[in-house]
Amino acid sequence: MVIDDRELHEECGVFGVYEAEDAARLTYYGLHALQHRGQEGAGICVRHNKLHLHKGEGLVTEVFDKERLKQLPGNAAIGHVRYSTAGGGGIANVQPFLFRTMKGSLGVCHNGNIVNANILKAQLEEEGAIFNSTSDTEILGHLIKRHTGRFIDRICKSLRELDGAFAFLILCENALYAARDKYGLRPLSIGQLPNGGYVFASETCALDIVGARYLRDLMPGEVVRVKDGELKSKFYLPTDQIVDKICAMEYIYFSRPDSTIEGINVHTARKNAGRMLYHESPVDADLVIGVPDSSISAAIGYAEESGIPYEMGLVKNKYVGRTFIQPTQALREQGVRMKLSAVSSIVRDKRVIMIDDSIVRGTTSKRIVRLLKEAGAKEVHVRIASPAIKYPCFYGVDTSTIEELISNRMDVEELRDYIEADSLAFLSEEGLQKTTAVTDTCTGLCLSCFSGHYVTPLYDSYKNANKDEK
Amino acid sequence: MVIDDRELHEECGVFGVYEAEDAARLTYYGLHALQHRGQEGAGICVRHNKLHLHKGEGLVTEVFDKERLKQLPGNAAIGHVRYSTAGGGGIANVQPFLFRTMKGSLGVCHNGNIVNANILKAQLEEEGAIFNSTSDTEILGHLIKRHTGRFIDRICKSLRELDGAFAFLILCENALYAARDKYGLRPLSIGQLPNGGYVFASETCALDIVGARYLRDLMPGEVVRVKDGELKSKFYLPTDQIVDKICAMEYIYFSRPDSTIEGINVHTARKNAGRMLYHESPVDADLVIGVPDSSISAAIGYAEESGIPYEMGLVKNKYVGRTFIQPTQALREQGVRMKLSAVSSIVRDKRVIMIDDSIVRGTTSKRIVRLLKEAGAKEVHVRIASPAIKYPCFYGVDTSTIEELISNRMDVEELRDYIEADSLAFLSEEGLQKTTAVTDTCTGLCLSCFSGHYVTPLYDSYKNANKDEK
Amino acid sequence: MVIDDRELHEECGVFGVYEAEDAARLTYYGLHALQHRGQEGAGICVRHNKLHLHKGEGLVTEVFDKERLKQLPGNAAIGHVRYSTAGGGGIANVQPFLFRTMKGSLGVCHNGNIVNANILKAQLEEEGAIFNSTSDTEILGHLIKRHTGRFIDRICKSLRELDGAFAFLILCENALYAARDKYGLRPLSIGQLPNGGYVFASETCALDIVGARYLRDLMPGEVVRVKDGELKSKFYLPTDQIVDKICAMEYIYFSRPDSTIEGINVHTARKNAGRMLYHESPVDADLVIGVPDSSISAAIGYAEESGIPYEMGLVKNKYVGRTFIQPTQALREQGVRMKLSAVSSIVRDKRVIMIDDSIVRGTTSKRIVRLLKEAGAKEVHVRIASPAIKYPCFYGVDTSTIEELISNRMDVEELRDYIEADSLAFLSEEGLQKTTAVTDTCTGLCLSCFSGHYVTPLYDSYKNANKDEK
Amino acid sequence: MVIDDRELHEECGVFGVYEAEDAARLTYYGLHALQHRGQEGAGICVRHNKLHLHKGEGLVTEVFDKERLKQLPGNAAIGHVRYSTAGGGGIANVQPFLFRTMKGSLGVCHNGNIVNANILKAQLEEEGAIFNSTSDTEILGHLIKRHTGRFIDRICKSLRELDGAFAFLILCENALYAARDKYGLRPLSIGQLPNGGYVFASETCALDIVGARYLRDLMPGEVVRVKDGELKSKFYLPTDQIVDKICAMEYIYFSRPDSTIEGINVHTARKNAGRMLYHESPVDADLVIGVPDSSISAAIGYAEESGIPYEMGLVKNKYVGRTFIQPTQALREQGVRMKLSAVSSIVRDKRVIMIDDSIVRGTTSKRIVRLLKEAGAKEVHVRIASPAIKYPCFYGVDTSTIEELISNRMDVEELRDYIEADSLAFLSEEGLQKTTAVTDTCTGLCLSCFSGHYVTPLYDSYKNANKDEK
Repeated sequence: MVIDDRELHEECGVFGVYEAEDAARLTYYGLHALQHRGQEGAGICVRHNKLHLHKGEGLVTEVFDKERLKQLPGNAAIGHVRYSTAGGGGIANVQPFLFRTMKGSLGVCHNGNIVNANILKAQLEEEGAIFNSTSDTEILGHLIKRHTGRFIDRICKSLRELDGAFAFLILCENALYAARDKYGLRPLSIGQLPNGGYVFASETCALDIVGARYLRDLMPGEVVRVKDGELKSKFYLPTDQIVDKICAMEYIYFSRPDSTIEGINVHTARKNAGRMLYHESPVDADLVIGVPDSSISAAIGYAEESGIPYEMGLVKNKYVGRTFIQPTQALREQGVRMKLSAVSSIVRDKRVIMIDDSIVRGTTSKRIVRLLKEAGAKEVHVRIASPAIKYPCFYGVDTSTIEELISNRMDVEELRDYIEADSLAFLSEEGLQKTTAVTDTCTGLCLSCFSGHYVTPLYDSYKNANKDEK
Repeated sequence: MVIDDRELHEECGVFGVYEAEDAARLTYYGLHALQHRGQEGAGICVRHNKLHLHKGEGLVTEVFDKERLKQLPGNAAIGHVRYSTAGGGGIANVQPFLFRTMKGSLGVCHNGNIVNANILKAQLEEEGAIFNSTSDTEILGHLIKRHTGRFIDRICKSLRELDGAFAFLILCENALYAARDKYGLRPLSIGQLPNGGYVFASETCALDIVGARYLRDLMPGEVVRVKDGELKSKFYLPTDQIVDKICAMEYIYFSRPDSTIEGINVHTARKNAGRMLYHESPVDADLVIGVPDSSISAAIGYAEESGIPYEMGLVKNKYVGRTFIQPTQALREQGVRMKLSAVSSIVRDKRVIMIDDSIVRGTTSKRIVRLLKEAGAKEVHVRIASPAIKYPCFYGVDTSTIEELISNRMDVEELRDYIEADSLAFLSEEGLQKTTAVTDTCTGLCLSCFSGHYVTPLYDSYKNANKDEK
Repeated sequence: MVIDDRELHEECGVFGVYEAEDAARLTYYGLHALQHRGQEGAGICVRHNKLHLHKGEGLVTEVFDKERLKQLPGNAAIGHVRYSTAGGGGIANVQPFLFRTMKGSLGVCHNGNIVNANILKAQLEEEGAIFNSTSDTEILGHLIKRHTGRFIDRICKSLRELDGAFAFLILCENALYAARDKYGLRPLSIGQLPNGGYVFASETCALDIVGARYLRDLMPGEVVRVKDGELKSKFYLPTDQIVDKICAMEYIYFSRPDSTIEGINVHTARKNAGRMLYHESPVDADLVIGVPDSSISAAIGYAEESGIPYEMGLVKNKYVGRTFIQPTQALREQGVRMKLSAVSSIVRDKRVIMIDDSIVRGTTSKRIVRLLKEAGAKEVHVRIASPAIKYPCFYGVDTSTIEELISNRMDVEELRDYIEADSLAFLSEEGLQKTTAVTDTCTGLCLSCFSGHYVTPLYDSYKNANKDEK
Repeated sequence: MVIDDRELHEECGVFGVYEAEDAARLTYYGLHALQHRGQEGAGICVRHNKLHLHKGEGLVTEVFDKERLKQLPGNAAIGHVRYSTAGGGGIANVQPFLFRTMKGSLGVCHNGNIVNANILKAQLEEEGAIFNSTSDTEILGHLIKRHTGRFIDRICKSLRELDGAFAFLILCENALYAARDKYGLRPLSIGQLPNGGYVFASETCALDIVGARYLRDLMPGEVVRVKDGELKSKFYLPTDQIVDKICAMEYIYFSRPDSTIEGINVHTARKNAGRMLYHESPVDADLVIGVPDSSISAAIGYAEESGIPYEMGLVKNKYVGRTFIQPTQALREQGVRMKLSAVSSIVRDKRVIMIDDSIVRGTTSKRIVRLLKEAGAKEVHVRIASPAIKYPCFYGVDTSTIEELISNRMDVEELRDYIEADSLAFLSEEGLQKTTAVTDTCTGLCLSCFSGHYVTPLYDSYKNANKDEK
């Protein structure tokens, strides 16, 4: 699926470091590697005795320049890149949040979606809380403040009250905490710098960029504290309430191909999906192409397994950015193509297998099929490297509403007809499961959006609220 | 005194409108006219059924572009321009604040300084509040939330708890409130648009720019509500607790010369100060010059009254901005002058009367006198259009600490010697009082920084806290 | 007259330095001081063994950043700020020009207009020249190339062929040349740095900013060479062909008030004009106001001479720039005023004398009178500190075409009626002459645009060509 | 090889359209597709009755914004993207050039390098020409001016005088000309818009983006004119002097994989090279990786042919740009990697075949091998999809000097040792020839940089001149 036009949206990324010189700069690089997870806002909270925060709307490189980073000295930091729907919340929702009290400050950021947020917010407002954003993240700050006991206990008690998907980073003046929800829906990995400092990141690509060695993933229901050079782990829930159900979309679409989640490299998982897809739905054709960028790996897998050559039949234009002048309607009608172009010298008079990672509203697929046919493709066989998305996600993925999900309304044949493909097939749920079943680290996937079997209870109120908050 | 180098700093500006089409755009223009009061951050909170907020660091024109304004439709708005010391607080302290509750939202911004802020904050934290900024403005939000009764009563009760200097604007989903502290320390004026909508602004120049007719100033201790096209006024305190003591520095230095405060035009007040200064401290000389921009009016007054011609002996370079490349130390030593240059063809071999609005640390005055002498001035007689500043301000003006105030350490003769002037005189407190005593609207001035007689109690804790918050 | 809306346009500025360390940076500051003379483009050509050039469209601070200046080391430089009509020529016309030959390079820039440009260009094309711009400046390069003899002689021969208005700076690998046209139409002053290096600038304000001492102005018909630390002067024409006729508009409008041209300070000349204007056309009124910025000095002169107080009845908004969001038509009709606002608290119910520097098309004057009346002024008496402009300028000032010059079509009474003023008067030509007749340096003014008596022959072809080149 | 760090540099790209509405905008998109060929400057010359030009330094999207494009109406245009070495020439060298004469103007741009430029320049200077840039492009303008006869004949005579590599576009007020050098060293293709207008582009990817149908490539020694909707072709040299020797590097490295040159798709040619490379130099290993972006296609070819899986062992960070804050030396030493990172979870304990397109100085290869070993690779076998570069290019490719070309100094074994690879092999010249030998359109490749057998004479003077001009 095409960036700038993608139908699924990333759900934020977090990065933290404790301790290393120039922590803000390391975080800058880490967030940069996670930029694909959120391009609407970025922030870094750094500890230099006290906590200091800078955040803004835009890309990491837009929010931070040299001057800014210089003003953020310190040896511990957390940072966040944010995705939001257009106009959603604005700067007030950009993370991390910095909660100030007379006794000390608290920096908090998270990736995910708290499904019982509205219930908790109503309760907290009753008790005197005021919210400055529509973000779920503030809830954790208020819960921690209200609980008593040792700080780690206050955090654990607070986390137990939350239901949903989350990966939290919490920075205090003397420690850094990281926590993952009890289903393990959102990823969070731990690395170690050559100097011994610890690094936390939504994806391992952010560990690689700062030269950190990957240690392991946080486990579902685990909270980890780094303090005085030592890493301590604890489960905030009895283990029988914990289940491993990482979001399948992390493998299929969100994560960078060079990241490794729960022991499985994303590119490899995608290649596996492509191979599996060939076994499930083979087709005789002249060449295999992938929709750039996220479907290339699956296309290569399909090509390798089938022996049909992988060719570059679709190209994404690299330089498209904010300041790019979009074609007028008149030019578009004349055939000016910006985001994606079909390479006619490759596809003309060919039977093409087009691999995509997913279909959401169907309009993009329809457009690409047409593009290929206009460029001369004789046949276009669409193969999707994941099952059909039929249900909305409540765990931090901005799928469309249920009405907009085309697979909720159409069966495969109707959809094939709609997108004007010569044939269409999806990967089965079983097939998808197998693509990640090569290690014993990853024990399960959340397939809610395919099956409608949600891993959390469905709270009455949450569907209509917090729409713009990831 | 010279912008970019000024020793006194502005203390924010507020603007509000209720109701008028395209309220955000009107607020943009209003804030633009108030830009001299704060150049570090700007924000607009607009009502379009619900409240929406955008804010950022930088000038109004940097924070808002066309796209942004389009995303802020609505017919009521409040806005703020902020001054802060370098690095102070960052985006988290930029106003307005938007407080969200299940029952509705509240936009709040203010200009001033709450002197009992720390006491109130400690109390509120005890009761469950979390603060997201170091700004005093959040306090009002929490107080309003904690009080009960009709909304206007909750506001009045809250305002009664605050001590210090403030001009508040509060935007709800169905009304706009404006309030001024009981001493009237900070200004706030009311205007009316041709369409009947009401406008509030720290200075009348912001009314002029949007084509609003000036109605009157808010009175000290008054709270005003606009709702359903009607303006209602109320005093939140018994009138015997109210006293009119507007900050003298508003006339001397902060406000734009075209603004009118409590019935007196600022340019005229400054010209009066110049005239008075001549009567108190005449001197025989060849020409009168003013330190641009804020001292020009006083210099013209002095020239008119004395008959000595006003000449342009000092020039400020207009285009100095953020991206300007400052001269290296080497070039500075060779005589490269950016912010202010002396015009040697004017001052050479002349006896010069140099009018300035105030002296804070003395270094700027010393530098300008030297500049004039290097340019060939035979004598430089410094006349200051206000009394000597000997005490720090706690009401929203960022004077230096008491140790840095040169008039606290030196008498006039020592200071004359220090700045290397041929003579030096300040305007007397009585003289200053008279410059504004031409109407019966303005009944008094706050002269705390000259006399040390503060108009509010001095709370133990306030001196060391909230330094960066205006 | 109001910047951003001015009806007359500046005609470029030049700056050169030979020799001083960091010559490009000094030029940057010098051009910055001359920015009011041209805001469309800027360039610096520096000598560091060879010649190097950087130029671009926009303000000096937009064309040059730190990185750029670092890439221009060297101890001699020339620079230029350019005015052009919208879309005129673009980057190709931005100066300096760098002419490269196998034997060495030549940097050239100029301020002015060559009236026999088309004749020369046609001739040069015949002889094999190709022009890369529509600028007159290229002509000089080609002429110098075609002449033979010592370099200084080739320059003199070339200058003799040019007719019109110009101030040229020419940088070679081993010397800097400066030349002024035989009428002295455009100004050019010489200064000296503390280190002994020489500086050339269109206005003395650029000498002041770099700490250079003003030596003298170049004389009409003079060419000056700096080489090996020595300044040599020569007239390229017999002195009987030379006449001093500096452009009167330099005093009236273009130059910065702190500049001194041919011995007369501009602010002082304007104040003189204001005084003279009072004597020629007194009127009984309550206050005097000036149209900012260029008419303030004349207004102060009028006020001083008449004893009527000078007040700040019109204010220009400072921060208006490229990114400023202009009011919609709807808002403008409601009274939103950006560039200039009338201060109603000053002018209401008052008889106002409004001083402006000139009237070109009349629309601006009409607008300002109306603004003042809407703000409540009882009477508006317009006094113009220069004679009526009736004829186009061919010497580098972008006046309108003759049809647009309102004084060409209307007499004073018709114009008064058109601009809706209660009275109107212009300064006489004699009065204007007297304002600058205080020294014996300036022996005459070019009054062509007032009188139609042009100082050069009028070549058939030049009127329709090179419109966009200054 | 890695962008931002590449050792070979592109050699500009050209695009032209005649006729189509909004020609500047089409050119903007075309240049955008060619952006990889030059990122230092861009320009568009448009015909709207007369010719108009805008150009600047930076990316296409930096040089042109909406406002700019609006100011360039017209239905014919040529454009250029430029590569230059740091500081080389600056804006003066950015193309197109606009030559103005009394009889009409001429817009010219080109991609390539004229090897007899210095001889021609010396001659032209003798005859009165002045050069404004160090670009070869100006030469053609002067030659055309000096020749007589019909315009097409003047162009042909001029082209005959040029020796070297070039693809020229020439825009007049009534026609567009395109020409290619007699060796066909630089590519140039012709396309047609749905409306019938003609399009010329260095690569076919620029035809695809504007919806143009590929017609054919210009032939070596051909000049084509479009006028009044008609395309006319002519050879400016007898065909026996013409030979087809397109630059091999266009296939190997410069062109976009989706482009088709002389009938052969670039991705396909690279895959072929990868396959051939496997046959020539097989090796037993666990996985194949490519150095992004230009070596991915070859790596896929090698993997397909060998059956060894292609994996994503190296990742390039996408968002690296001008404003990106580079890691400090300290951070780099700690392992912070920006441009390229090795994916340790992929390569750890694996025998890796690393495919790269070429080796120039060897330092990049050494760095990548080390990166892979540090990430845990057990063996690294380097396979280069082109022969060893031993000789400098004089036809528009910025290879290093002969001393810097590591294969000029080392044999394969020495180089293997230097880059610390476990094995190293290059593709043979024969192998390379075969990768493009699939059609009869492309009859030969320029292999000068591999073999030292240059296709043009070697003029004495050209080696040391025009270094910065492509």
